[in-house]
Amino acid sequence: MDTNEMRIKRWIKENRARGARLLQILVRENSTRGNESSTQAIIIEKCRQLGLTLDIWEIGGDELKSHPAYCCDRQSFGGNPNLVAILKGTGGGKSMILNGHIDVVPVGDELSWKHDPFSGTIECGKLYGRGATDMKGGNAALLMAIESLIANGIQLKGDVIFQSVIEEESGGAGTLAAVLRGYHADGAIIPEPTNLKIFPKQQGSMWFRIIVKGKAAHGGTRYKGVSAIEKALLVIQNLQQLEKDRNARITDPLFDKIPIPIPINIGKLTSGEWPSSVPDTAIIEGRMGVSPDETIQSAQLEMEKCLSEIGEHDVWLRENPLKLEWFGGRWLPGSLENDHPLMNELTKSFIEVKSDRPIIEASPWGTDGGILSTIGNTPVVIFGPGITETAHDANEHIVLEDMFIASEIIALTLLKWCEVAD
Amino acid sequence: MDTNEMRIKRWIKENRARGARLLQILVRENSTRGNESSTQAIIIEKCRQLGLTLDIWEIGGDELKSHPAYCCDRQSFGGNPNLVAILKGTGGGKSMILNGHIDVVPVGDELSWKHDPFSGTIECGKLYGRGATDMKGGNAALLMAIESLIANGIQLKGDVIFQSVIEEESGGAGTLAAVLRGYHADGAIIPEPTNLKIFPKQQGSMWFRIIVKGKAAHGGTRYKGVSAIEKALLVIQNLQQLEKDRNARITDPLFDKIPIPIPINIGKLTSGEWPSSVPDTAIIEGRMGVSPDETIQSAQLEMEKCLSEIGEHDVWLRENPLKLEWFGGRWLPGSLENDHPLMNELTKSFIEVKSDRPIIEASPWGTDGGILSTIGNTPVVIFGPGITETAHDANEHIVLEDMFIASEIIALTLLKWCEVAD
Repeated sequence: MDTNEMRIKRWIKENRARGARLLQILVRENSTRGNESSTQAIIIEKCRQLGLTLDIWEIGGDELKSHPAYCCDRQSFGGNPNLVAILKGTGGGKSMILNGHIDVVPVGDELSWKHDPFSGTIECGKLYGRGATDMKGGNAALLMAIESLIANGIQLKGDVIFQSVIEEESGGAGTLAAVLRGYHADGAIIPEPTNLKIFPKQQGSMWFRIIVKGKAAHGGTRYKGVSAIEKALLVIQNLQQLEKDRNARITDPLFDKIPIPIPINIGKLTSGEWPSSVPDTAIIEGRMGVSPDETIQSAQLEMEKCLSEIGEHDVWLRENPLKLEWFGGRWLPGSLENDHPLMNELTKSFIEVKSDRPIIEASPWGTDGGILSTIGNTPVVIFGPGITETAHDANEHIVLEDMFIASEIIALTLLKWCEVAD
Repeated sequence: MDTNEMRIKRWIKENRARGARLLQILVRENSTRGNESSTQAIIIEKCRQLGLTLDIWEIGGDELKSHPAYCCDRQSFGGNPNLVAILKGTGGGKSMILNGHIDVVPVGDELSWKHDPFSGTIECGKLYGRGATDMKGGNAALLMAIESLIANGIQLKGDVIFQSVIEEESGGAGTLAAVLRGYHADGAIIPEPTNLKIFPKQQGSMWFRIIVKGKAAHGGTRYKGVSAIEKALLVIQNLQQLEKDRNARITDPLFDKIPIPIPINIGKLTSGEWPSSVPDTAIIEGRMGVSPDETIQSAQLEMEKCLSEIGEHDVWLRENPLKLEWFGGRWLPGSLENDHPLMNELTKSFIEVKSDRPIIEASPWGTDGGILSTIGNTPVVIFGPGITETAHDANEHIVLEDMFIASEIIALTLLKWCEVAD
């Protein structure tokens, strides 16, 4: 007689086209911030068909908005709900949250894409489109894993709590809302694009905005003004040095293979409104990585110090101090012991499917894992099929085979973690 | 009996409040690009009251748009006319164009202004507001000079051709249209803000746009991308060096007191659309000064060479070449001999009014003078009451006393240049 493991493997193998199709229809919906509803509707309908217990709600309200970890500049969440869908266990087993975000980042320069960013084109085993890797592919892997259990009539003891959340790309308000609604578990897997690596530690991160003052003048007498762009360049050079200093301190071997463990990314620079005027304001926006071994607060203090030190060497900036704002996204760092049972079970399943040991590293980016673990007291591992390198990039894509492998590994982990009912 | 000179001086002295009020109502109208009509209407009404012969027309048409000196990205000129208003001479004298532009640059950061930028507030003899100096104050000085002749019943032999043009700040399409409509003269004064200095030579200038390509990536793995901002910084550093090299070659003593005779101003930099993405495009916009001793074309070639050389030292830029566009504004350089009769007459009038020799320099910026002289074959001097330093800046203002002085000097010059009819 077939084991449950064999039946799951076979089902996933036989349903690859079905899984690819699911991902394709998810990618074809644009779910950038504020536009999550149509993609979420597909997920909801899928969960309804699977017979899961649904909890669909629009996030917001005072408890969420006054929470210290709430970090969000979005005005309205109306019409773009969060979803939690539960595969109820018979009792007695450990519970597992399977969390994925449904929001995607903007497409960037459309001309750099070889296919329409929302085409979901499949080519040589890869599916292309914004969100294919980050992280609709991960979500599809979760749904396949759950369906493989249901389709084979396998009942688990522990609950499987599937979460399809909004706002991950902007600071995690969706997952925070789910935590505050009472969802926690004995373990959680978030299939962010890790290239099938396992990330027990996750870098935190947060967004910053630096406002640089200059003094306007006619471009023909530009020496009478102070260029906010030139001052912004000075700020950027100092941030580059700060990034070097902060990364030189990182010694955790989980970061060994990562060129810049906690980057400071300058994502936006806007200055000036007229070619022949000296620009009087520059606005720098970016993202600062936070080590799993430091707090958000200590990293913020370090940047504040760096910026105030620039003024010590620059008369203009001393008299016209830089203004630093922490806005928009903020992701708490997260950390799980290397020998936590969740790590062990996931590693075992990985070896069972891949016949090889997984690569265990620290994540190069923030995830909702920090909120789940820090606020929700749920042990979290990040493990997913997407390609880190293509996330947020033009021509984002996923290798479909990896999506099926991740689905298999997660399904096998559920068997062990939640235990099969008698 | 009073001389004409004495009557003019007395009239201007007695009508200072009237002149200040004229400037105030001009400044209170926002005449940024595309919004020139209401200010132009005030000028037109004033010229009508003075009994000048009016020519009011919307510029455009094939002759203008196909002219090699036409350089304009504006879609429509409808509703914002050019004006030429002529004080007809009795014949036999030399004619004079008095040219001023009615358009002003945007206000920039409104918070940096101590008064509303369109208030026209008068404080301690200074009138504040966008355009007060550049160059509604100059225009008001011209109108006062003309009115002082008419009010005193002084008839000239030569024509005085007053021009209130649009588009100077964006490349001179207004003055070019007036030239193509047939207006030229034996001399021209443009009262741009020279601090009452006389500029026989004018720097040319033109706008450029440089498009810098990067490679997008997630900010957490920013080392997988190529930051367009970092590459833009490299471009800016090279442009700074180019500016140094070009200015080191300037030997004309008229530039002796100007720290950077022909600046390269970086007026705008925009890059990126998401704080935690590596920006894949940066757009630099600026203004390049052109020496009176070189051509627009040779300056353009020099910048093209500079940009292509960056690629020789940067693999990414070699494979992803910078794109250079010359767009929007372009002002031809202009040059008049130091001993031209127009210089002599203006200098004499200056000494008559100020009891001191004028400062003669080269202009630190482009004007419509290049078009008037190069295309319109009209000898041009730039001389006006505004404060160079406050042009295009917050808190732009003019010293009203200087406006009356300029008006007097110009009126006296008209007496000599156009000659008083018998």
